[in-house]
Amino acid sequence: MKVVFDEAQMLHDPRNFLVSGAPQPNPEVPERARTFLAAVGEAGHELVAPPDHGAGPRAAVHTPEYLQFLETIYTRWRRIDGASAEVVPNIHPNGRADGYPASAVGQAGYHMADTACPISDGTWEAACASANTAAHAAEMVLGGGEAVAYALCRPPGHHAFAGMAGGFCFLNNAAIAAQYLRKRAARVAILDVDLHHGNGTQGIFYDRADVLTVSLHADPVRFYPFFWGHSDERGVGPGLGYNLNLPLPRGTADDGYLEVLEKALSRIRAFAPDALVVALGLDPFEGDPLAGLKVTTGGFGRIARVIAGLDLPTVIVQEGGYMCRELGGNLSSFLKGFEDGRNDR
Amino acid sequence: MKVVFDEAQMLHDPRNFLVSGAPQPNPEVPERARTFLAAVGEAGHELVAPPDHGAGPRAAVHTPEYLQFLETIYTRWRRIDGASAEVVPNIHPNGRADGYPASAVGQAGYHMADTACPISDGTWEAACASANTAAHAAEMVLGGGEAVAYALCRPPGHHAFAGMAGGFCFLNNAAIAAQYLRKRAARVAILDVDLHHGNGTQGIFYDRADVLTVSLHADPVRFYPFFWGHSDERGVGPGLGYNLNLPLPRGTADDGYLEVLEKALSRIRAFAPDALVVALGLDPFEGDPLAGLKVTTGGFGRIARVIAGLDLPTVIVQEGGYMCRELGGNLSSFLKGFEDGRNDR
Repeated sequence: MKVVFDEAQMLHDPRNFLVSGAPQPNPEVPERARTFLAAVGEAGHELVAPPDHGAGPRAAVHTPEYLQFLETIYTRWRRIDGASAEVVPNIHPNGRADGYPASAVGQAGYHMADTACPISDGTWEAACASANTAAHAAEMVLGGGEAVAYALCRPPGHHAFAGMAGGFCFLNNAAIAAQYLRKRAARVAILDVDLHHGNGTQGIFYDRADVLTVSLHADPVRFYPFFWGHSDERGVGPGLGYNLNLPLPRGTADDGYLEVLEKALSRIRAFAPDALVVALGLDPFEGDPLAGLKVTTGGFGRIARVIAGLDLPTVIVQEGGYMCRELGGNLSSFLKGFEDGRNDR
Repeated sequence: MKVVFDEAQMLHDPRNFLVSGAPQPNPEVPERARTFLAAVGEAGHELVAPPDHGAGPRAAVHTPEYLQFLETIYTRWRRIDGASAEVVPNIHPNGRADGYPASAVGQAGYHMADTACPISDGTWEAACASANTAAHAAEMVLGGGEAVAYALCRPPGHHAFAGMAGGFCFLNNAAIAAQYLRKRAARVAILDVDLHHGNGTQGIFYDRADVLTVSLHADPVRFYPFFWGHSDERGVGPGLGYNLNLPLPRGTADDGYLEVLEKALSRIRAFAPDALVVALGLDPFEGDPLAGLKVTTGGFGRIARVIAGLDLPTVIVQEGGYMCRELGGNLSSFLKGFEDGRNDR
């Protein structure tokens, strides 16, 4: 399987985030990508450095004011006396939808859903490289004759909305890949198997019927992202019925996961898409530090195998999955399972 | 002038808040109230300890789910492993209006607009005492034959919405006083002279024509609360035209302030209210640590004198104003100016 990777993604190196109000070391570290790289190298996958697809793919998904914010905020933040080292919001426009703040602090609250997406000097470049990686993987599948490509993306993307960062995410790589595929695919499905609900992806396509969004994740009733990911969120307007959330009880293991995954695949088959994006989080792993589900290393292979059974042109986009001994092995298991699944057919 | 004060207000003793993402000592300290007490004592005002008016006055302004949150959140927060010492939100439902989170962390984001309203073990009791203080001052003016009463409130209230804390505020004392006055006053005006826009007060009465809300404050374009306080916010539905924001350029001093205050008073006179609530912040002071405007100690007397010229039954509710040598003197100047203004008539 071809693996797309851009070294510039390593420029983002966040320090902290708040958990239940208290600062903790940020687990979305560049070392994650090194671990994934080592794993795909060992498995003999072919690395591809993406050419620059320009601003188009990200602009097709994100608002211009948000993109301007991401590009300029760190420089502006540094000019504020006594400001934090990383851009972190401290006031939010809860309950107010119109109006746009002029100040750096106001815009930080407007464009950042939480305190888990600190912006530093390499963030914009890394996020663009990550988005470009996803776009190129889509290009390879769309026009390059690849049945499947893996975009080794970081920072991840699925918590990023059209106009808002959140949960380690800045640009929504999976959404960018899906929108890129729409150039030639009339209908695209996104299947999100990260531990956390893909709230940004859901938000971006919530009113659209051309992109089906399906997410399996730990029940947000007591888990990030709290406000999104519940089963009653089905889409709005023309998009009503084109979003499916499948929240899982904490601690769900392989068999329970695969059972619910079947519902996701059944919905995707009914949608009859022309292409698929898999938002691949490896944090459902039983040993992941964000401890929510109990999928095993072998389980990722089984999950991949049934997804491959959809037999669709597929872009696999890396989302979460955090440092633990088995992180690389979990990726290898998924990618091998996916290839096995395709060979089954 | 009679001064209402409840000692239980001292139980709230917040430690920190975030300014431009960085933790700073919280300036809304109990010592503020001690300073105000000393000033009113020295000026010979009569202190009144309020009887308990119960849950009614706060319930007339705030949502039941928010009141339950405020009462219970600290105990629930303490049960979270590794949580911060004070309740501080770290994720917000920006861009999502429906749905209500079950978890403590989710509810903190839902009910707290920013990181400047940390909740600790004495917060609920102190906030209720502060609200009760305002209600009792209203009762004294409404039924007790007082022409004016001063509610020595803390924590302050004007950034608190019906369902949301913010900016050192939990229960909206000025709104509670106004709503209490509505028992017998058909129309009530609230004049907010705090340094910061009274966004919570505005929000509570935004769709109502029976309570006029007028606020003078440092222009929020680059000042807290950023998302509210702009001159184009005029109210909605039946309340359209019943909210007036008068943002002032940073550094506005006495004469400039008094000129704009005349516009506020003119609007209030046109509304012909039966009673007035003054949300009295002393932080427009030139020496206030939150440095935004340049009102002098003498200026507060002049401001009070013209407000008293409205000749309305008036409840003065303490809002902001932070530790500096002149804090007590600024209060004395305002209260004396107000009494002089009434005697002028």
